[in-house]
Amino acid sequence: MNRLPFHLTATDPSGARAGRLVTPHGEVETPCFMPVGTQGAVKALTPRDLESVGARLVLANTYHLHLRPGEEVVRALGGLHRFTGWAGPMLTDSGGFQAYSLAGRSRVDDAGVSFRSHVDGRALHLGPEDAVRIQEALGADIAMCLDHCPAWPCGRGPAEEALERTLAWAGRSRAAHRREDQALFGIVQGSVFADLRARGAADLASLDLDGYALGGLSVGEPPALRWEVLAAAAPSLPAGRPRYLMGLGPPADLLEGIALGLDLFDCVVATRNARHAGLFTADGPLHLQNARHREDPRPVEEGCDCYTCGRFSRAYLRHLFAAGEMTAATLATIHNLRHFLRLMEEARHAIRAGRFEDFRRGRLARLRA
Amino acid sequence: MNRLPFHLTATDPSGARAGRLVTPHGEVETPCFMPVGTQGAVKALTPRDLESVGARLVLANTYHLHLRPGEEVVRALGGLHRFTGWAGPMLTDSGGFQAYSLAGRSRVDDAGVSFRSHVDGRALHLGPEDAVRIQEALGADIAMCLDHCPAWPCGRGPAEEALERTLAWAGRSRAAHRREDQALFGIVQGSVFADLRARGAADLASLDLDGYALGGLSVGEPPALRWEVLAAAAPSLPAGRPRYLMGLGPPADLLEGIALGLDLFDCVVATRNARHAGLFTADGPLHLQNARHREDPRPVEEGCDCYTCGRFSRAYLRHLFAAGEMTAATLATIHNLRHFLRLMEEARHAIRAGRFEDFRRGRLARLRA
Repeated sequence: MNRLPFHLTATDPSGARAGRLVTPHGEVETPCFMPVGTQGAVKALTPRDLESVGARLVLANTYHLHLRPGEEVVRALGGLHRFTGWAGPMLTDSGGFQAYSLAGRSRVDDAGVSFRSHVDGRALHLGPEDAVRIQEALGADIAMCLDHCPAWPCGRGPAEEALERTLAWAGRSRAAHRREDQALFGIVQGSVFADLRARGAADLASLDLDGYALGGLSVGEPPALRWEVLAAAAPSLPAGRPRYLMGLGPPADLLEGIALGLDLFDCVVATRNARHAGLFTADGPLHLQNARHREDPRPVEEGCDCYTCGRFSRAYLRHLFAAGEMTAATLATIHNLRHFLRLMEEARHAIRAGRFEDFRRGRLARLRA
Repeated sequence: MNRLPFHLTATDPSGARAGRLVTPHGEVETPCFMPVGTQGAVKALTPRDLESVGARLVLANTYHLHLRPGEEVVRALGGLHRFTGWAGPMLTDSGGFQAYSLAGRSRVDDAGVSFRSHVDGRALHLGPEDAVRIQEALGADIAMCLDHCPAWPCGRGPAEEALERTLAWAGRSRAAHRREDQALFGIVQGSVFADLRARGAADLASLDLDGYALGGLSVGEPPALRWEVLAAAAPSLPAGRPRYLMGLGPPADLLEGIALGLDLFDCVVATRNARHAGLFTADGPLHLQNARHREDPRPVEEGCDCYTCGRFSRAYLRHLFAAGEMTAATLATIHNLRHFLRLMEEARHAIRAGRFEDFRRGRLARLRA
């Protein structure tokens, strides 16, 4: 399939790649970081705030939107873009991850996930065909196949079972999927077993999907093991299709993921930390509730071109957090997202210039200084 | 004094007036509604949101900013405009009203108000000279004299005492006030006693202040009585100076206040109701949590030119409120403020055209239909 044209525009000696994804709602330059708009809004922001930080591809959560307001309401209101006011490209996840992590008493078998809603406790079932149907009703540019994400720690047996089930579900999802204006990505599971991941990637590739994701990571596994299996799996994903690393996001992880030739990333860390006064800078995190920022006239990050850094001091943000003002979350989220998106802009620039490895090392050195 | 040039540009047969106030941070067309930025931010908005709704004069609360972050922090950061990022005109209230309504165990005597902070319980004292000193440090364009606002119900004796004390404090405030780039307004008290209000207005006028306010209303008194005393007091305020009706804000009240020749208004109702899904329209309020808006594709208010009405449905806003998303408060606040500010724009237009009374009646009829 190729409902989602993807043009590789540069490959760096490190293996990092720059590309352009063409969606029905506009083009996306990769590597790309996706802000998370769980319930159809990036928390504390309006779409124009999101435009101001240079966001392109925005993620929304199928599980949350299925429970509330329901995909048929979204469809009746013209689909996710029109409903949320975000005119740019969107991706919906499959709902599988949330069905484990948020729902009560969830159970997985070959038919899908059975769980209880975290909103009202009602019993629900989500099979791979349901996830496709719901995402077609939502109408994002990219939909994800339902996957089985096992809890950590996970033995080889259960890891293999989750991988096989996820592959089978990908085949069923592909068969069920109808929308020609929506791409469908598959997900590789396999926990921390490098050979399972590599085989899963190759098997999934045989389904000829529009894109491929690596899921089930950042669930508690040791980081060294995580990067080992990612290094084993990434080369088995088709080079001509976009590759998405799900849920990993601190800047150091983004730099590692880009070096492995991955293209798409999402993580709540940018927006969630912002709401708790955790601000990202190239020289490491700032905690704005710290008393040392009480009279600090500096912007959050020198040289940052975001609205927050251009107009407000650390002292003002600290005051807003201390006073419990919602505006604090908005201004902090604007900065954090802009920080992540600038990092991606700079990464693309470095890849095109063939000096990504230097760039990566330089940024990691500053972060660790 | 005349640190705040005020040009009356039109007076309607009804008594309503249109004017232009010239502040160090720009001009303000009157009648003017001031959004309330209690702690140095209008709740749920950024300054650029506030610019987008056409806000000009913004109010901040001396009591809150004195407690947190403290006026010396604000001064050290360059004053309220630079600190908050709001480059337009600002007004600070005196802190007197909050010292009664929010603080614990407050006590008033001729020296001022003694109270306990609602933040940390520490004992504080605010005299008229303190209120001036704090507001000079904050550096708004307009400062208010400390006033004694008696609780409702209030007998004639206590009302007269509060009025006399407030007049005496206005004299002391005037003597203490130094900043040439900051105007000072006095406040008329007198509860619901029309003769006290009229005498208070005349006595205050003899102090030759930059502007005059009517305070101590909307504290529980019957509305009919309120408008009776306002009608008695308003004509005694100098015609050549701005007249400010403190704390009254629902649109019907704004229309009544304008008809009495009053120029400036503030009220938390626009912003507070927004955060609780209460949206203003010319045809009366909407409660967006109501189930009937579940699939309602219409904007909050047909014909409204705000960002929210231009881009989002009632169904989407309802979803955001139901899901507990902060963005709901932002979008609702944008609409409500724009609704209030458009009402003022239309009122100014009607005054200039000499048809304010028709305008007022038409709007009240729609609101009550």
